[in-house]
Amino acid sequence: MRFVIIGGDAAGMSAASRAGRLQPDTEIIVFEQTEDVSYSACGMPYNIANPDSPVEDLVVRSAKVFREKQGIDLRTGHRVTAIDREEKLVKGETAEGDTFECNYDKLLIATGASPVIPDLPGIENEGVLPLKKLEDGRILKAYLTEHNVKKAVIIGMGYIALEMADSLRTRDVEVTMVKPRSRLLPWLNEKLSDVVWKELEDNGVEIYSGHTINSISKTNNTLTVHCDDRDFRCQLVLPAIGVKPCSELAKEAGLKTSIHDAISVDRFTNTGDPDIYSAGDCADAYHVVTGKKSWVPLAVQANRAGRAVADNIFGDGLELQGIAGSAMFRVFGLEVARSGLNPYEAGEHGFDPVEITIESRSRAHAHPGNTTMHVAMVGDKQTGRLLGAQMVGREGVAHRIHAVAVALHAGMTVADFWQCDLAYAPPFSPVWDPLLTAANQLSKKVT
Amino acid sequence: MRFVIIGGDAAGMSAASRAGRLQPDTEIIVFEQTEDVSYSACGMPYNIANPDSPVEDLVVRSAKVFREKQGIDLRTGHRVTAIDREEKLVKGETAEGDTFECNYDKLLIATGASPVIPDLPGIENEGVLPLKKLEDGRILKAYLTEHNVKKAVIIGMGYIALEMADSLRTRDVEVTMVKPRSRLLPWLNEKLSDVVWKELEDNGVEIYSGHTINSISKTNNTLTVHCDDRDFRCQLVLPAIGVKPCSELAKEAGLKTSIHDAISVDRFTNTGDPDIYSAGDCADAYHVVTGKKSWVPLAVQANRAGRAVADNIFGDGLELQGIAGSAMFRVFGLEVARSGLNPYEAGEHGFDPVEITIESRSRAHAHPGNTTMHVAMVGDKQTGRLLGAQMVGREGVAHRIHAVAVALHAGMTVADFWQCDLAYAPPFSPVWDPLLTAANQLSKKVT
Repeated sequence: MRFVIIGGDAAGMSAASRAGRLQPDTEIIVFEQTEDVSYSACGMPYNIANPDSPVEDLVVRSAKVFREKQGIDLRTGHRVTAIDREEKLVKGETAEGDTFECNYDKLLIATGASPVIPDLPGIENEGVLPLKKLEDGRILKAYLTEHNVKKAVIIGMGYIALEMADSLRTRDVEVTMVKPRSRLLPWLNEKLSDVVWKELEDNGVEIYSGHTINSISKTNNTLTVHCDDRDFRCQLVLPAIGVKPCSELAKEAGLKTSIHDAISVDRFTNTGDPDIYSAGDCADAYHVVTGKKSWVPLAVQANRAGRAVADNIFGDGLELQGIAGSAMFRVFGLEVARSGLNPYEAGEHGFDPVEITIESRSRAHAHPGNTTMHVAMVGDKQTGRLLGAQMVGREGVAHRIHAVAVALHAGMTVADFWQCDLAYAPPFSPVWDPLLTAANQLSKKVT
Repeated sequence: MRFVIIGGDAAGMSAASRAGRLQPDTEIIVFEQTEDVSYSACGMPYNIANPDSPVEDLVVRSAKVFREKQGIDLRTGHRVTAIDREEKLVKGETAEGDTFECNYDKLLIATGASPVIPDLPGIENEGVLPLKKLEDGRILKAYLTEHNVKKAVIIGMGYIALEMADSLRTRDVEVTMVKPRSRLLPWLNEKLSDVVWKELEDNGVEIYSGHTINSISKTNNTLTVHCDDRDFRCQLVLPAIGVKPCSELAKEAGLKTSIHDAISVDRFTNTGDPDIYSAGDCADAYHVVTGKKSWVPLAVQANRAGRAVADNIFGDGLELQGIAGSAMFRVFGLEVARSGLNPYEAGEHGFDPVEITIESRSRAHAHPGNTTMHVAMVGDKQTGRLLGAQMVGREGVAHRIHAVAVALHAGMTVADFWQCDLAYAPPFSPVWDPLLTAANQLSKKVT
């Protein structure tokens, strides 16, 4: 039995490792177009912040270990260009320009996502550097040093944009964020978003929202980002307006895609072709709140789904419950976290959403070091069901969101969630945990 | 309608405040034997650590506010000594020695818990100071300064013993912990307990476990704790071997008690007498995992149950789901947290417990500041149900336990819990959250 995997990052290598453990005699071949496998892409902004840490620190498990210890036939520099489902064959091209073909019994498409590159004149200029793959991180980090970058413009407003703003400020680079839309993190509750905005400004980030970007030009070592009403000069432009699933291969092979053009898979990670699976940032997933397809390209789901592919081919089978859209990040001194739906998303999915926002504290009354914590919580007015929560604060935000994720998986009502026996100690929360205070407020407005 | 409340701390004042909001014309009378109401008892160890912060900082809402703003007839220095259920009357004595009587329509017994004082010759010596009420904190804090305490002996091994060890070390007091049993925190998994033990030693706390204490004597300013094989000299002895419910009043009135002699209440906080309710550290509660009565005297339940009493008398009624036995505390640089059952407790309640322990990391691979996190997780072998978890680590422990508490309320299996979409970002966890890694290990050993 030959198991072929296209893509050697989180989902692909999770599947490969798991398959090897479940059926050691399986022939496992991984085609990875870059030279890097199994690295922490999410760690790049933090790594880039420190000029002294090599990007290679982010490699979780080396190609050597996969090849020699796990017996996986890992072929880097191999780009798959076509899938022939009739012949059960993948075709491709190596970095050296040679072509290759390889038959499969079972195939996993784990091609990930790629950054959306804004369609701007001048986007191809040297010094306009997106960040997605480890090689991007290597190039960006070298560029910062070699070009002695003092000023950068970030185009975008997502996690990576904010994490990179933090990273570059740590390196004393002046940072300007420019974007056409008015809101920072448009999925975030407006009050919470304002807190993040202020944190960026307090840390010297200049934010120009509502500025349409027309082009980028380069003169000598200076890049200029041209907007309608003003220009921004810098040595580095980071386009970070989002990512899209790498689903072309699958589409060309006639496989279905769904929301955001992600490869459509069932709860058993299968694409509809009984021999082809998909997992990771290229594939969709069921949302535990809506029960519908969702596309949230994040690492935990990639690892879990990759593992599930191996279980579904070689093991006892693993039905995935789905994702709750949980995410967290740090930006300067703030922790930002979310799980579930915001009111807009809830409305789109037919709920009757009610949202409350509260301000609470991170520690008990009179406990030193107390800071403000902001919680936004959403419930369904008709059924009382908890639909989601978002939090911003200086401590205790990130890990608290896990409780919301679990409650969403359990389909709890807001009132049920309020009953949960969350622990309390003065250094860690008020007696009424901020999540419980929010649930209490919200429970008055639903059902 | 007259609502009489015995006890003016968390449960009592939560009920009083809520009753006033639900039915503003209710006559609410609170009898509190001390002069202090509504304070954070849990905050005392932290407050004591700082000689410059008055104990009064711990008062959450002052008697003045309750009386003048909320219209509650709050009578401090009033100790209730008897309940006459026939006459619907409480009788008592004031601090000045006067007697009083008061009729009730509805009565709440919120008498709390009191420290268990070890039955030792010499326990009455000056400088042997338990810590439970705010007045105890006031006395202890003054004693530390006035007697220039340089060395203290703590008898016990619970939260308060450990928090006070930390507090006293912060004030440069030498601390010796002495106890007859061999284990520190006997409810805690042994590997995790060893981590806590080492943290205490690393912070200069001397631990003498397995030493039976025979007596305490005092000569001049020096107290001596006499054990079988050695004596410990100090200026302060802190007995912290646990607390017991103050259920005497209820028992004398013929009300039922249950586990640990706590006042027995139903899910609607009623004692069995339709006009008498009980809440807080004096009352029992249902455990969400066992479905049976449990007694875990902690602040969140006290506040929730107090509020429920008012809802059940004056509002729409509130059925309490129960407690999960969630608790957390900080000791020096460690966070310690638990929720649910340990294997011993699980076995006692008829489960077939399996426990695993794992070591994971607090941050992502290669992220700076990474530290070790220890997780013990318990499941039922027969049903696969998650029964509990415990954690120890330097960061990210306390708020993570909330996820376990929610899962226990939802009755999740270990496999279901593993499917939960916990958020990930490099500063906050490995891609596989330590809880998910533990669930994965445990899922292999159940069902």
